[in-house]
Amino acid sequence: MSTLDPAAGKAVYDADRAHVFHSWSAQGLISPLAVAGAEGSYFWDYDGNRYLDFASQLVNTNIGHQHPKVVAAIKAQADKLCMVQPAFANDARSEAARLITELAPGDLNRVFFTNGGAEANENAIRMARLHTGRHKVLSTYRSYHGATANAIALTGDPRRWPNETGVSGIVHFWGPYAYRSAFHADGEAQECERALAHLENTIVFEGAQTIAAIVLETVVGTAGILVPPPGYLAGVRALCDKYGIIFIADEVMAGFGRTGAWFAVDNWDITPDLITFAKGVNSGYVPLGGVIISDRIFETFRERPYPGGLTYSGHPLACAAAVATITAMRDEKIVENAKRLGESVIGPELRAMAARHASVGEVRGLGVFWAIELVRNKETREPLVAYNAAGPAAQPMNEFTAACKARGLWPFVNMNRTHVVPPCTSTDAEVKEGLAILDEALTVADAFCA
Amino acid sequence: MSTLDPAAGKAVYDADRAHVFHSWSAQGLISPLAVAGAEGSYFWDYDGNRYLDFASQLVNTNIGHQHPKVVAAIKAQADKLCMVQPAFANDARSEAARLITELAPGDLNRVFFTNGGAEANENAIRMARLHTGRHKVLSTYRSYHGATANAIALTGDPRRWPNETGVSGIVHFWGPYAYRSAFHADGEAQECERALAHLENTIVFEGAQTIAAIVLETVVGTAGILVPPPGYLAGVRALCDKYGIIFIADEVMAGFGRTGAWFAVDNWDITPDLITFAKGVNSGYVPLGGVIISDRIFETFRERPYPGGLTYSGHPLACAAAVATITAMRDEKIVENAKRLGESVIGPELRAMAARHASVGEVRGLGVFWAIELVRNKETREPLVAYNAAGPAAQPMNEFTAACKARGLWPFVNMNRTHVVPPCTSTDAEVKEGLAILDEALTVADAFCA
Ligand SMILES: Cc1ncc(COP(=O)(O)O)c(C=O)c1O
Ligand SMILES: Cc1ncc(COP(=O)(O)O)c(C=O)c1O
Repeated sequence: MSTLDPAAGKAVYDADRAHVFHSWSAQGLISPLAVAGAEGSYFWDYDGNRYLDFASQLVNTNIGHQHPKVVAAIKAQADKLCMVQPAFANDARSEAARLITELAPGDLNRVFFTNGGAEANENAIRMARLHTGRHKVLSTYRSYHGATANAIALTGDPRRWPNETGVSGIVHFWGPYAYRSAFHADGEAQECERALAHLENTIVFEGAQTIAAIVLETVVGTAGILVPPPGYLAGVRALCDKYGIIFIADEVMAGFGRTGAWFAVDNWDITPDLITFAKGVNSGYVPLGGVIISDRIFETFRERPYPGGLTYSGHPLACAAAVATITAMRDEKIVENAKRLGESVIGPELRAMAARHASVGEVRGLGVFWAIELVRNKETREPLVAYNAAGPAAQPMNEFTAACKARGLWPFVNMNRTHVVPPCTSTDAEVKEGLAILDEALTVADAFCA
Repeated sequence: MSTLDPAAGKAVYDADRAHVFHSWSAQGLISPLAVAGAEGSYFWDYDGNRYLDFASQLVNTNIGHQHPKVVAAIKAQADKLCMVQPAFANDARSEAARLITELAPGDLNRVFFTNGGAEANENAIRMARLHTGRHKVLSTYRSYHGATANAIALTGDPRRWPNETGVSGIVHFWGPYAYRSAFHADGEAQECERALAHLENTIVFEGAQTIAAIVLETVVGTAGILVPPPGYLAGVRALCDKYGIIFIADEVMAGFGRTGAWFAVDNWDITPDLITFAKGVNSGYVPLGGVIISDRIFETFRERPYPGGLTYSGHPLACAAAVATITAMRDEKIVENAKRLGESVIGPELRAMAARHASVGEVRGLGVFWAIELVRNKETREPLVAYNAAGPAAQPMNEFTAACKARGLWPFVNMNRTHVVPPCTSTDAEVKEGLAILDEALTVADAFCA
């Protein structure tokens, strides 16, 4: 935080307001914070305000900000070779693919690289459709899969609504979510059983022979950190096998350490047919995403051309950052740290907070991937703000958010939830600092309880 | 080319074959060249073979390989701050947006950043649809717009065919191409007039009030370096104004110096409503693309949220590379160099080659953006290989390609064409070296002429 200059911050802000068009926003109603720098679990603005990053930006800086080994690898690769096109072989690309497939379960032995998560899902769907010769793809209402045409159509959350016209063949179903069961289930075991029955019924009534793929976030991220009950993913795997459907696990947010495992599927020993990834693979230091591909699907494209691509597939700079990120995560036992934080620090603390606060309906998660679900009333479970609330209807969550920021915490907030998603590299002290601020901010939320 | 080690090259190749899934390819039928390094207009493999890069990779390294100022900027930004999320303001992002809008024509004053060209087109279509409240989008049969769902549906070339199911509302029409006129026109002026009449008829019969946008590559790239005849783009602009349709200029390949101008539209003094870009903006050193937005469309999203985004929108490392690239291109007069190369070196040489070779049907282009169209017969204009030829049917072009590579030239080849698309930074000597090799390789093609 050495060279802070509020005037420079104002110039950055003014140029942003004059020329940068922001995602997911009404351009005239936002005041973007000008970020001057970041390190580890913190970032800061030009006025000397420092924030503990409990959102890991957009849940992507799993290794924290400015990890020296990743920065060094980017600089070394920049000196060596920034870019070659996808048709060539390249050392950074080969090594990133080797490391990723080494970590991936089962026979997921090939990687198709993209720039980010949306493109990863676009390509996974393309592979599944061409492999099966079928068209429909099933995904859940509580999901986010990206913003290109097919990816946003797959998405369940309201960001789909203004975007879904013009795309056919996507069908939404309900996933397990015991706290707000779509199946009137009593407890996790029944939720699992009923969710699988619902999925099988949906498959049968859509026509199994019309369905190319089921796309699931292994642990649902933005839509609520919904951890699947034991047996659910194995049940989905079995249904896919039974009906010849491709199982695509979207691990764009859940992968690369977030759940305290390299891949979230490792928590349940499941091997999907395709895994999509982005974010954590190199913590977003350089844009990178991709699809990890099973041998079976690879075989489909051994003699038949794969009809997809992008200029920056396997970008050397992005791949070099991935190699350094994965290597550092291994060497420094960062995934193990995420697991430990979830089990020993975040879980116990959040459960204690849930008992203390009228506004906390449920806490859930694993690793450094947790949600606090805020309610007006613990009995009725009425959400603190309604689904997709905006403006005055969102006021309770806006006040909660402001209370966090005023105390130096940058929270991840979505609808009636805040997610505890700090870097996997966080220390116990940092996590406790953040949780203490959340604890205070929750008293603001408590005031709205009935 | 200091540290070449064939054994290392073999290891890179083997790991690639074991783990990297390649775009647009049958995985078992390719042998990717392992590229060890690159500088300026050349790259080389691990066996000491050096190639003059007449393809600028995928027509993206406009500033050549490893430009020292861009490399230095990437390293400096890596040390400072690799990534912040899109909701923040950031100096590299603000400055890149300011520079890009300063270069852009008319009131194109805002930039939405993406990772690449496909995402840029996805977002441009989204903006046009929401701005107009209409659904259909028109594009040309001879075009490439990317490989996400809407971008590949927009695309005219055969890569669309296995991908277009499931997307509605895209209509293809015929653009001007005097050498193979879709309108039986005699010469450029008539081609222009008839192409505009065809477009207006298409608009009227599709229903103007159903059409959100017309998407055109300002100069068609991959599908043939089709330079629009004088008056065509002004005519399209007038039709868009007449019918309330958004004019989207795809300058992913044509922008940032390729045509000897900053934007290809500058060659005809046209201001579209949206320009999509990628590639040349930072020569692909870090993945970056985007949409440049007119004030009118910006106003639509002043109070109404824009429903699109991606984790890496406005990525600081990518934006810092863009700032350095644009600055170096300005300081070193690289766009001027591209214009001069086209007018004084490439154009005259290609026209002389066309006169010498039986296989050259037409040469066309501007800046460092040229096509040589190969034919079996200059009179009948029969293409040297048929549209979308593969396997033995593509043999004449395969032999031509092999002849180039054997002589140390890496050509861009598509169907019955080779494109002369070297970096904008090329010297006269480099361009002449490459053209001399093409000249020799064309004698291989001549042998197939009747
Ligand atoms: C689960 C999931 N899938 C896909 C995406 C889209 O990734 P990107 O923003 O890189 O396109 C996201 C982004 O948040 C995500 O969380
Ligand atoms: C004109 C044009 N538009 C869009 C694209 C897609 O860009 P990307 O490969 O970065 O997605 C390309 C790529 O070649 C292109 O040439």
